[in-house]
Amino acid sequence: MIVVIKNQATEEQVSELMEWLRGFNVKTNLVTGVHSRIIGLIGDTTSIDADAVMAREGVEAVKRVQEPYKNANRRFHPEDTVIEVRGRRIGGGSLAVIAGPCSVETEDQLMRTAAAVKNAGADFLRGGAFKPRTSPYAFQGLGKEGIDLLIQARKETGLPIVTEIMDLSDLDLFADVDIVQVGARNMQNFTLLKALGRCDKPVLLKRGLSATLQELLMSAEYIMSEGNGKVILCERGIRTFEPETRNTLDISAVPLLRQKTHLPIVIDPSHATGHSGLVEPMSLAAVSAGADGLEIEVHTDPKNAWSDGAQSLTPEQFASSMKKIRALEKFVINGLCS
Amino acid sequence: MIVVIKNQATEEQVSELMEWLRGFNVKTNLVTGVHSRIIGLIGDTTSIDADAVMAREGVEAVKRVQEPYKNANRRFHPEDTVIEVRGRRIGGGSLAVIAGPCSVETEDQLMRTAAAVKNAGADFLRGGAFKPRTSPYAFQGLGKEGIDLLIQARKETGLPIVTEIMDLSDLDLFADVDIVQVGARNMQNFTLLKALGRCDKPVLLKRGLSATLQELLMSAEYIMSEGNGKVILCERGIRTFEPETRNTLDISAVPLLRQKTHLPIVIDPSHATGHSGLVEPMSLAAVSAGADGLEIEVHTDPKNAWSDGAQSLTPEQFASSMKKIRALEKFVINGLCS
Amino acid sequence: MIVVIKNQATEEQVSELMEWLRGFNVKTNLVTGVHSRIIGLIGDTTSIDADAVMAREGVEAVKRVQEPYKNANRRFHPEDTVIEVRGRRIGGGSLAVIAGPCSVETEDQLMRTAAAVKNAGADFLRGGAFKPRTSPYAFQGLGKEGIDLLIQARKETGLPIVTEIMDLSDLDLFADVDIVQVGARNMQNFTLLKALGRCDKPVLLKRGLSATLQELLMSAEYIMSEGNGKVILCERGIRTFEPETRNTLDISAVPLLRQKTHLPIVIDPSHATGHSGLVEPMSLAAVSAGADGLEIEVHTDPKNAWSDGAQSLTPEQFASSMKKIRALEKFVINGLCS
Amino acid sequence: MIVVIKNQATEEQVSELMEWLRGFNVKTNLVTGVHSRIIGLIGDTTSIDADAVMAREGVEAVKRVQEPYKNANRRFHPEDTVIEVRGRRIGGGSLAVIAGPCSVETEDQLMRTAAAVKNAGADFLRGGAFKPRTSPYAFQGLGKEGIDLLIQARKETGLPIVTEIMDLSDLDLFADVDIVQVGARNMQNFTLLKALGRCDKPVLLKRGLSATLQELLMSAEYIMSEGNGKVILCERGIRTFEPETRNTLDISAVPLLRQKTHLPIVIDPSHATGHSGLVEPMSLAAVSAGADGLEIEVHTDPKNAWSDGAQSLTPEQFASSMKKIRALEKFVINGLCS
Repeated sequence: MIVVIKNQATEEQVSELMEWLRGFNVKTNLVTGVHSRIIGLIGDTTSIDADAVMAREGVEAVKRVQEPYKNANRRFHPEDTVIEVRGRRIGGGSLAVIAGPCSVETEDQLMRTAAAVKNAGADFLRGGAFKPRTSPYAFQGLGKEGIDLLIQARKETGLPIVTEIMDLSDLDLFADVDIVQVGARNMQNFTLLKALGRCDKPVLLKRGLSATLQELLMSAEYIMSEGNGKVILCERGIRTFEPETRNTLDISAVPLLRQKTHLPIVIDPSHATGHSGLVEPMSLAAVSAGADGLEIEVHTDPKNAWSDGAQSLTPEQFASSMKKIRALEKFVINGLCS
Repeated sequence: MIVVIKNQATEEQVSELMEWLRGFNVKTNLVTGVHSRIIGLIGDTTSIDADAVMAREGVEAVKRVQEPYKNANRRFHPEDTVIEVRGRRIGGGSLAVIAGPCSVETEDQLMRTAAAVKNAGADFLRGGAFKPRTSPYAFQGLGKEGIDLLIQARKETGLPIVTEIMDLSDLDLFADVDIVQVGARNMQNFTLLKALGRCDKPVLLKRGLSATLQELLMSAEYIMSEGNGKVILCERGIRTFEPETRNTLDISAVPLLRQKTHLPIVIDPSHATGHSGLVEPMSLAAVSAGADGLEIEVHTDPKNAWSDGAQSLTPEQFASSMKKIRALEKFVINGLCS
Repeated sequence: MIVVIKNQATEEQVSELMEWLRGFNVKTNLVTGVHSRIIGLIGDTTSIDADAVMAREGVEAVKRVQEPYKNANRRFHPEDTVIEVRGRRIGGGSLAVIAGPCSVETEDQLMRTAAAVKNAGADFLRGGAFKPRTSPYAFQGLGKEGIDLLIQARKETGLPIVTEIMDLSDLDLFADVDIVQVGARNMQNFTLLKALGRCDKPVLLKRGLSATLQELLMSAEYIMSEGNGKVILCERGIRTFEPETRNTLDISAVPLLRQKTHLPIVIDPSHATGHSGLVEPMSLAAVSAGADGLEIEVHTDPKNAWSDGAQSLTPEQFASSMKKIRALEKFVINGLCS
Repeated sequence: MIVVIKNQATEEQVSELMEWLRGFNVKTNLVTGVHSRIIGLIGDTTSIDADAVMAREGVEAVKRVQEPYKNANRRFHPEDTVIEVRGRRIGGGSLAVIAGPCSVETEDQLMRTAAAVKNAGADFLRGGAFKPRTSPYAFQGLGKEGIDLLIQARKETGLPIVTEIMDLSDLDLFADVDIVQVGARNMQNFTLLKALGRCDKPVLLKRGLSATLQELLMSAEYIMSEGNGKVILCERGIRTFEPETRNTLDISAVPLLRQKTHLPIVIDPSHATGHSGLVEPMSLAAVSAGADGLEIEVHTDPKNAWSDGAQSLTPEQFASSMKKIRALEKFVINGLCS
C-alpha cells in the first residue's frame, strides 16, 4: 500500500500518520521528493482499510498494491482448486456442464428435463426451488417441494444437483443438496456467505450485476475465511447500457480470474444473454477462453416455462449444442494445447 | 401491454397466443397491418410476466405500457404518503434530516455525535450496528451492542433511530428500532423484504448500486404487498464508470420518483459521493430538487472512524451545513412555491 | 507518479527502468521493502505516458499522483476563469442562462423564441444549425442558413449566440458566432479541439456520454494547450443503465470540477434528462450545487419541434422556471454565502 | 411503431395526432381499450423520429417495432456481405486477421513488424498514422509520413493496409489506403461518415465506447445511405465499471449483429482488454463465437512502444497465438459445422 501525502501536511501530521500505520504491524518507508512525499507500507496490508487511511489528516491518496484477498489468491495457492462432487470434478482442466430448468415446476417437467440433459452429456442438474423475482406477483418457486423433486431427479439420473439459496433461514433445507448456488443479488449478502463458509459444501458464487471481479473475489474470501474452500466462481453477465442483451457477458473474466485465483470459473450464458439463440455461440466462446464449466438453462417446453423461457434451450437444442461443446472441449485440450 | 407478432407466425400460433393471454383475465385486441400484427392487452397486466410472453412462439417483442407495481403507484394513490415516527414526519413537504456515524463504535462516540447532530437540527439519528463490508477482514459492526447504544442515545436525545438490518435472522433485535434500513446490497433480498412487509415499522429502502428506479419500486412493492405501506425510498448513488466519486448521485431520481410514486424520497449524499467535501453541495442540490429527506454521515473524529471516515462530516461541518440546508428548505417552501 | 516493480524483476531490469524514467527529466527514488519495491518519480510527469511505463519489463503497476493536465488545473491557476462575451460573463459567481431551441428551424420560430427567452431573462441564445443525429434519415439542421438566422436573432435581441460545430471544415462559418459549442460526440475529436485552440473564441465543451471528468479536462487541455484559454465545461448527462431518463445528470460534477479546475461549469438539464418535466427541478439543483450556468432548450411549439421536442420547455414554462431560477440564484449568493 | 396515448388525451388531440402521423405515408390503426388507447403504424417508419412523436400532445409512450436502419438490415439483404481487398476477403465464412503496431513509429519498426505478421499468417497490416490520444502531450502519430511507410510496407509484404482517419480534412491522404478505419471516438462523427459514404473504399467502423449495437448500425447506415456498402463492423470493448480491463469486450455482439445485419464483424481484443495476456484467449473466444475477423496489435519491442505497449504482442507471441487461432478456425468451420 502506498500513501500519498498532501503538499500542505505538517511534519507532525506525517509522523502521527506513520505511527498510526505502524500500529497495523507494517513497516513504513517515507520518500521525500521536491513536490511530494509518499509512504510505502511493507508487510501484510490485508487488514488495513484504504478508506480509513484516506480519512486521516494529511492524506492525498491511497493506492493498494497487494490484493486484499488471501485464501482466494493464486499467489499463495498456485495450484488450481479442483472440487469433486459425487465423482464429478469442477476445475483443473475438464469442462463441467450444469444444465436444467430455470425453475423446478412439476415432477414431470423436472424428470423429463433431467433425463434429457443427462443423455445429452450434462454433468450436473440445476433447477431453481427458491426464485428471486423482481416482482412480488411473479412465481416465487416451489420451495422445499422443489428441492425434494431435485433429490428425486438425482436418484433417477445420478446427476448431482445445484440449486440456489435465497435466505439463511432456509439453510437446513439444503442439507442434501450437492452444490449450493448463491445468486447475483446475494453476492454481497455477507451473513449468508459466512454461514456457507461454515458448511462443508461446494458453493457456486455468482458475480453480482455490477460487481467488480475484485468484489467477487472478496465475497469468495468471506466464504473461505470461515473454513470452506470449495468455492466455484460464476460469471453471468454484468449490467451495462446495451439493451439488446439482458446483460453483457464478460468473457474476459475467465482468463483474468485464472491469473488472480485458483478457484474454478463457470460461465452462465443463459442469464447473461437472455436469448436462447445466443447460448450456443457464447458457450463455445467460453470454452475457448478456458472456462471450467457452463451453466445452461434447458426446459422441455420453453414457451410454457414459468420463468426465463426466452433464454431456455429445448432438450433437442441442448443436445445439438452439447455435441459442439464437447467436440470443442476436446479440441481445446488436445488440439490447441499440444 | 403490447405484444408484437413475428412476421412468420402462423394463424394458429396467434390464436393460441391470444387464448393463453386471455387466461390472465385481460382482453386482447389484434391489430393487423401490412407488415406486422400486434396484440394490445386491456386490463390489469401486473401479474403477466413479460419474459413469459416473450418465450411464447410467434412473439417478436413485448412492450409494457402499464407499470408493474400497484401499491407504490401514484396513479392509484395520488396523495403523498407521510410517515410519522415519534412525532417526526417524513414526506409531504418538510425535510427530514437523518444524521449520525456510519458505524456505532463506542458509547462515547455515539452519545457525543447524537448530541451534536441534535443540536444542529437533525430529526433522526442514524448509526450502523451491522455493517456490510466488502472485506471479511474489515470491522463488521458491534451488532446487538450497537443497537443497545442507539436506544440509549435515543433516550438521551429524543431522536428516533435508524439502523440497517443485514439479515432476517437478526429481525428480533430491531423490535425497538424506529426505522429499519435496508442497504443497497439487500435491495433485492426478497425474503427479507417480505418479512419486513409483515412488520408494522417504517422501512428505509436504499436503491441498489445498479438498480433501475422501476426495480426500486418493485422492491418497495414487495414490502407493501405484504401489508406494510411505510416505505421510504433512498437514492444513494449508482455505479458508473466515473472513478472520482464513489458512486454517481442520481438526483433526477427525486422528481422522477415523485411522478411515479407517493412514497417519500430521501437522498444520501455521503455514500453517493464518498467525499465529505461534496456532501454540502449535493445536499443543497437534493433539497432544491424536492427531496423529502437527507441521510448524512457525521463523526466526532472522522480521521479515526472505523469505517467511511473520508465521507463523514465533523459535528462543526454538519452544523454549518445544516444552517444552509434549513435556510434553503425554508426558501424552497416559501420563496419558490409562492 | 509511482511505479510498482514486479517481485521477480531483476536488478538489471530495475536499473534500466530507472534510467529510462530519468530520461523524462524526473528524479527517481527507489524504495525497497520486504515484499515489494516501488519507484517514486519526482518532477513534472505530465509528459510521461502511464501506459508506456506499464509496458516496460518488470513493471507491476503505475499510479499517477499528479493530474495530467496543466492549463486547466486549479493548482496552477487558483483564480476562477471568467469569460466575457458582449458584456455577459460566464464564471466567477453569477449564473449565465443559455436558452433556445434544439434546432434552428425557421425564421419565425427562432425570432419568436429568441424574443421570449430574452424577455424571460436568458443571457445567451442557443440554437443548432448543424445537428448530430443518430439516424441519417432524421433532420440534419439548416447549416449555414441556421447560423445566419442566429446572427439575425442576435441583432434583434442583443443576445450573444451559442451554436454547435460538427466538423472542422465548417469552421469558417462560425466566424461571427459568439460561443462555439463542441457536442458530447465530439469531445474527443482532437483535430477539432486543436483547431479551436488556435481561435480566439470561447468554446463550450460538452462532456462525452461516457467520458470521465479527467477526460473532459484533458479535452479542455487540448484547446488550452494551443493557446485558447476560454473554455466552458458542460455536464449534460452520462450514459448509465437507467432507462427512465435519456442520461443520468451527474450534478456532483459541479463541485468536483470546481476543486480541480478554474474553468466555468455549465449544466444542460434538457439533454441530460430528456423530459421537459425534469428541467426545472434539475436546474434548481444545479444552481444550488454551484453551477456557473445552465443551457436549456426552449421551443415555441415543442409538439412540432423538428428535434428533441420532448425535452423542450414552452416560452411560458421557461419564464415560470426562470423566476424560480433567478430567485434561487440570488438566495444562494446572498442567503447561503453570508 | 406503436404510439401509446395518454389517458387524459382528448378526442381532438388523438385525431390531430393520427392525421399528423399519416403525413409520414403510413397507415394508422387505433385500438381502444378500457384503460388505454394505442395507435399502430403500418408502413415504412424509418423516417419517423420517435422523439418527435413523443413530443406531440397526448402521447404517453412510443415503441419502435421495426429497426430504424435499412441498408445494414439483414431483413432486406439476407446474404452475408463479403468485402474483397487485393484478393483478401472479409466476411462470408473465413477469418481475416489484421495485425500490426498500434502506432507507426519508424521505418525499421514497421517493416520488421509487417514481415513478422505476414510470416505468422496475417491477412492485413494495421498501423496508426493519426493517433487519437487522451492527452495533448502524448505522441500524436507520424501523420502523412506514417501512411507513406504503410504503403512501403504493403509493397514489401503484399499485405493490404488498414489505418485510422481522424478528421475529414485528411481524407486525401487516404487515397492509397486499402481500408479506412473509423475509431471508437469518431463512430458518431456524422460528417466524416457521410464523406466516407461517398468513397469507394471499405470502412472498418469501430463501436463507440458507450454505443449501443443499434447506434453502431445507424452509423453504418450513415455510410451506406451515401452509397458505400463496404462497411466492416468492429467490436473493441465497451466502457463499464470494471477496472481490471481497459474495456469490457462484448463478444455477444458477434452472434447478435449476425442476426441483425449482413455486414462482416471483426473483434479487436487488444484495445478491448488492454492486456497482452488476454489477447489470445479473447481471440479464440471470438473465433468460436463466429467472428469474421480479428484486429490484433503486434510490436517488435512492446516495452519501447510509443503507445499501447501493454496490450501489444511480440512477433513471437503473435506467431504462437496465430497457430492456435488458425487451427481453431479450421476446427470451427470443419469440425463444428459438419
